[in-house]
Formats: sequence, structure tokens, C-alpha cells
Amino acid sequence: MIKNEEQFIDFISNSFERIKNIPDSWIGIGDDAASINLNSKNVIFCSDAMVENVHFRKQDGFESVGWKSIVSNQSDLAGMGAIPIAFTITLGINNKFSNDEIKALYKGMNEACEIHGGYLVGGDVVNSRDIFVSISALGEPFNKDLIMLRNKAKINDLVAVTGEIGNAAAGLFSLENDIKSYIKQKNIFLKPAPMISHSENAIDAGILCGMDISDGLKKDLQRICNASKVSIEIEVDKIPFDKKLKDLYESNLYEKIITSGEDYQLIIIGSKEKLEKIHKKTKIMIIGKVVDNKSSELIFKNNKNNLKITSESFDHFGK
Amino acid sequence: MIKNEEQFIDFISNSFERIKNIPDSWIGIGDDAASINLNSKNVIFCSDAMVENVHFRKQDGFESVGWKSIVSNQSDLAGMGAIPIAFTITLGINNKFSNDEIKALYKGMNEACEIHGGYLVGGDVVNSRDIFVSISALGEPFNKDLIMLRNKAKINDLVAVTGEIGNAAAGLFSLENDIKSYIKQKNIFLKPAPMISHSENAIDAGILCGMDISDGLKKDLQRICNASKVSIEIEVDKIPFDKKLKDLYESNLYEKIITSGEDYQLIIIGSKEKLEKIHKKTKIMIIGKVVDNKSSELIFKNNKNNLKITSESFDHFGK
Repeated sequence: MIKNEEQFIDFISNSFERIKNIPDSWIGIGDDAASINLNSKNVIFCSDAMVENVHFRKQDGFESVGWKSIVSNQSDLAGMGAIPIAFTITLGINNKFSNDEIKALYKGMNEACEIHGGYLVGGDVVNSRDIFVSISALGEPFNKDLIMLRNKAKINDLVAVTGEIGNAAAGLFSLENDIKSYIKQKNIFLKPAPMISHSENAIDAGILCGMDISDGLKKDLQRICNASKVSIEIEVDKIPFDKKLKDLYESNLYEKIITSGEDYQLIIIGSKEKLEKIHKKTKIMIIGKVVDNKSSELIFKNNKNNLKITSESFDHFGK
Repeated sequence: MIKNEEQFIDFISNSFERIKNIPDSWIGIGDDAASINLNSKNVIFCSDAMVENVHFRKQDGFESVGWKSIVSNQSDLAGMGAIPIAFTITLGINNKFSNDEIKALYKGMNEACEIHGGYLVGGDVVNSRDIFVSISALGEPFNKDLIMLRNKAKINDLVAVTGEIGNAAAGLFSLENDIKSYIKQKNIFLKPAPMISHSENAIDAGILCGMDISDGLKKDLQRICNASKVSIEIEVDKIPFDKKLKDLYESNLYEKIITSGEDYQLIIIGSKEKLEKIHKKTKIMIIGKVVDNKSSELIFKNNKNNLKITSESFDHFGK
């Protein structure tokens, strides 16, 4: 049915609100590039890609792939303190990729934009043996003078997270091993939400340091330790998680929670006063503290004892 | 040597000027997203991807792949009347991709930015069987109130092109068939240049309609016919090309030139006066005219006779 790029552009342009109904002053799909009008001078710009059999399995459905590919970028914007504005989508497709799958993919992307913000304004379609979705996002800071960075953690700051940690990985594990129940976890894995209102509240409270947890708490906190040159101590029993995960993971519960990714929650770091200000509007949980500004060590404690975490978070590099 | 994403980011951040020496007010690689400061409110945003064995062959060298991946986006920006500002790069790599190849790729991208503008501010690295480079670009219009679009061609406008057409395809043909000489064509194929100063001059002259020729004159002119709902008549003997291509293509010379891509020249459409204004600063060649505002026909004429072009430009869709 869809024979060439022109037909493809026609189809997506006419089928999806977030491609068709862009603001009047913008230029969307169809020219060499999109033109976007912003109110602020600062632009937040990021990219995130998903590849078949690395980040997604065909059997999870392309609506979920589309949704997640947009949400992972919306989450990166939330991690900076910015609101989603526009996305370009580059698709790598092969001849097994059906029109129904294209429709499902764009349905998921369109819905993520409708619910969490942003429009689809352009992209590219190329041939590839592995299907991939590479998305770039433009965002606008909630506050034009303030964004959250990884290198702004200061000694004595407290470390907070939004929401429960570990659900997405538990959802994936349940899907892969055909474990019944864990419906909530499966839904979070297939359809995670970006923490946009938490991000706005953090910026309103004057938070300078934060990021999203896409590669697992351990790996992402270590990135803050490295960028800020601080040591952070986490009390693992304060990490919020769904108690049902105890049954799933048993003895290595904390290890699993700490190294599991794709929850798209936020790490927010700042003074007690600022974190309390956020907590009045949206729930966050304090799980640790910045204890040192000399080394870049990440320490997990369980009942005052250091906890040795041997497993690594997933690294897509070279895998 | 490069084991994970952190080491990869360290390596590229320290090795390349266009990643390291970004403007002071920007945030580049290392956070969830980049923050970019622009002088104008309008942002031009586009993406373009290249896949191994579809858009490039490993043996052409990754420096050329890096260069071309940036230039194809710079050319899209030129086609809109915008100057390159920033790029994010998403790399799909496999375990055969060596560190030397990574270096060569970034060397090519870095050089294209140094020569033609823009900085490398972020991206993503993922695993993929086929190596791919998916790049997104931000640009800023030369004139904040004027960009070039495909739907602005008007009856009696003249159609011009910058530079010679068909060299890149002739370069590829010579490389693939081990034909000696055609050095200029091979260089243009491996290291094309975006027509940024022509774009600026077109905007200065008040041109409203234009685009870059990435998929061949036939296909790209047809896109303008469709978007503007006009018919365009091209006199093929006015199309500028290197006379050496006659020997290469013989009888189907015009067909080859008209359907060959990757020259990254510009189509510029406007009144005679505006085109003359551009021509005073940078050479352009008038090759045709908008003859009708009812249908969307593209007609090629040779000595007043209609020329039937049967072959199609290359379409990456589904191939």
C-alpha cells in the first residue's frame, strides 16, 4: 500500500493530529526541515534511539515502541527541566515491516505527544536490517534562567527520587518469563510516563541538579557523582519500590532494583527546604545524601552497613 | 580500548574541537540533553540518516561517512535559508566497528562543522547489525522573517540551480566501476559541500521558494510542483554539468543527470530580478520556468521537444 516516501509522508501527515495540527506559525513535515517558534531563547535538544532486539522486541507491539521512543526523549527533557516542543523521527525499516506496524508505531508516538506534549515535525525513512527508531527532541525550559544539570550536586544536598524504582525491569522480566500478574509492572514497561510535572515543580523550587533514571539508579547516580565530583550515600531501604517485587527477586532484591532501568523517574538533588517545597506539590522520596566533595564514590548502605553491588546496569554500548 | 558509553563520551569530548569548544552559554554532551542559546526565536530543525550498504560503503572510509552525514543536514538547513547551529548524533554500531573507525567518523563530522558551521552537542550510541548514523540538526534562519519553502513557487517564476548537477553520482559510478580519472567527481561524492553562502544570498534577495537537491533534480523538482501545485518546464540543455560526464554516460546523459542525487546543490525559484541579484554575488544558472498553476506537472524539454524520462530517482523507502 505505502510504496514510497511521498506516500508515507501523506499517510502519516493525514492520520495523526500531532503531525497535522501543529501551531499555525510552524512549518512541519514536507520541507527540508521544520521551522519552530519558541517563546524563550534557550532551546533544549536531545536524541534517543531504540533498536529491534536491543531495546524492544517486535512482539511487544509497535504502539509501545512508538510510545516509548517519544517518552524516553520527553524524559530526557524532564531531566533537564524542560517541556517537550517538537520531535523528528528517523525510521530504519526493512521489507518485513508492515503498514499496520507503521500505523501502530505512529499511533503510539502520536498518543505520547498528545498526553505528554510536543509535535512530530519531520524525520527520515531509511532501509536497515534491524528496525530502529531514532528520535530527536526540542524542548523549552520551564524557567528560561534555570535548568537541571548533573554537575551541580553540592555537599550536604539530599538526594530524592520520584515514584517507585524497578517496576519497568520487573515488567520486562515478567513478560519474558511468562509470569502472570505483575500487570502494573508490565504496563509501566510497555507504557512508561515521563515525570514532567515533577520536573516543573523541581524547577519552581529552584533545584539545580537532576536527571532522569533511564539506565538504572546505580549507573545514573554514578554519573552525577562523576560530573559533580561528589560522593553520594544511598540508604537502600529508603528506595521506594512495589513490595510485590520481593517475591519476584527474593535474595537479590536491592541489587535488581538499583541496576534496573527504563522507569523514567527523576533523580532530584538539592537542599532539604527545596525538596520539601516539591513534596508539597508532588510526592518525592529522599533516599540519600551528598557526603563528600573530594571523590566520586557512590555508596549503598543497608541498615548502616555498606552494601556491595556487583552487577552492572545494562550498557548498550557495543552490545 | 573504548569499553562503554562513558569512555566513548570522554574520548569524543576530549578529541574534537566542535564538541569541546562550544559557546560558553551552552551545555553540550554529558547531560540528558543539550542547552543551546539562539539569537532568533525561530528554530529550524531537521534529521537525516545514513545506513551502511544503503547510503555508504565501509570501504569509502568513515571520515567521508562522518563528513557526509553532517553535510546532508547542513544542506537541508541551506535549503530552508538557515545557518547550522548544533547537531546531535545517534550511532548504531556493531562489534566489528573499530576505535579507529569511530575516530575517523568523528574526524569527518568535526571537520564538516569547522568548515561549514555548527557544533556537536549530544546523541546516543546503540547496537545495530547495520552501522547507521542518524543526525539531527538545529539551525537559525539567516533572516528571522523569511525562510525558503517548497510551496511558494508562483507562475512565471524562473527556476535556477547552484553549481553543476550529476557529479556526485558520476563519482560513485567511477568508484564502483574502478574507472580512473573523474577525480573531481569522486571528491564531490566523498566530500560534498552544502551551499550555505548561496542560501544566504537567496534569502538576502528575498527568495521564498527553494530546497536542496539531495534525491536528484527530477524527484526534488517534482516535490516543488506538488507542494506549490504548479507545473515546471526545464530546458535540459541549460542544466549545468561537467562535460566529462558525456563520456561516462553517452546516450542517456540527461536521464542520468536528472535522476542523480547527493550533489547537495540548491534549487532556487523566484522572479528574474531576484535571481539576478543572487547571480551578482554567487553564480547560479536558470534552467526553467513555472508555466502553470493548475496541475503539478514536471516537463523536461530538449530543443523545444518534450523529453520522456523513464528512470526514477533512487528511493530509500523500503529498499
